[in-house]
Amino acid sequence: MKIGSVVIDCINFDKMLAFWREALHYVPRRPALGGWVVLRDPDGRNTNISLNQVLPSEKLVGRNWLHFDLYTKDQSGEVVRLLKLGATRHPQEYDPGDDFIVLEDPDGNLFCVVQIPAS
Amino acid sequence: MKIGSVVIDCINFDKMLAFWREALHYVPRRPALGGWVVLRDPDGRNTNISLNQVLPSEKLVGRNWLHFDLYTKDQSGEVVRLLKLGATRHPQEYDPGDDFIVLEDPDGNLFCVVQIPAS
Repeated sequence: MKIGSVVIDCINFDKMLAFWREALHYVPRRPALGGWVVLRDPDGRNTNISLNQVLPSEKLVGRNWLHFDLYTKDQSGEVVRLLKLGATRHPQEYDPGDDFIVLEDPDGNLFCVVQIPAS
Repeated sequence: MKIGSVVIDCINFDKMLAFWREALHYVPRRPALGGWVVLRDPDGRNTNISLNQVLPSEKLVGRNWLHFDLYTKDQSGEVVRLLKLGATRHPQEYDPGDDFIVLEDPDGNLFCVVQIPAS
């Protein structure tokens, strides 16, 4: 058994699809149909994400209990790229030495861009 | 850049650690410290999960916007195993042909156990 996919309930389905596809360089397993698409790593190394359209009336109250940590060797470059793709900066106070930057995706889900050693 | 980890905010940190470690057959990257641990796939093939202890007062209102789909070739066997580990069945109406079963982890986060072809 394995984490096959992380499913994200989406209000702005098309924007979320465009954003996460480009953000992770993923491709649809099959074309989106009926508000559902599974995006996969073309190299098959990383877990899928699945986007599931839900009604605005189901909008989250409070905050998510799960979020992504995206690992990168080029944090500053990736943050710039993600902001261009439609992410926004989340208001956050950082402590010295924090290795993460908190962004929000087009639906407002928080995620972190984490610097990992370049070695 | 890749999904390095999925971070789960936990109320019942020790129970969540015991459950997810066994559920996924993961191991701590380093011993849990200060309410934080990263669990990794010992084979290095699957994404990490990170457990982050939070206060009960931060308890989610509503439901998560993200959830795991666990893929398995032995859905019924894995569901039995997960229930023994401390998962519970989530009340759910299924349609004929549904390939998923919805469970809850010790903190009440929903996740699905999805049957994938045995080939």
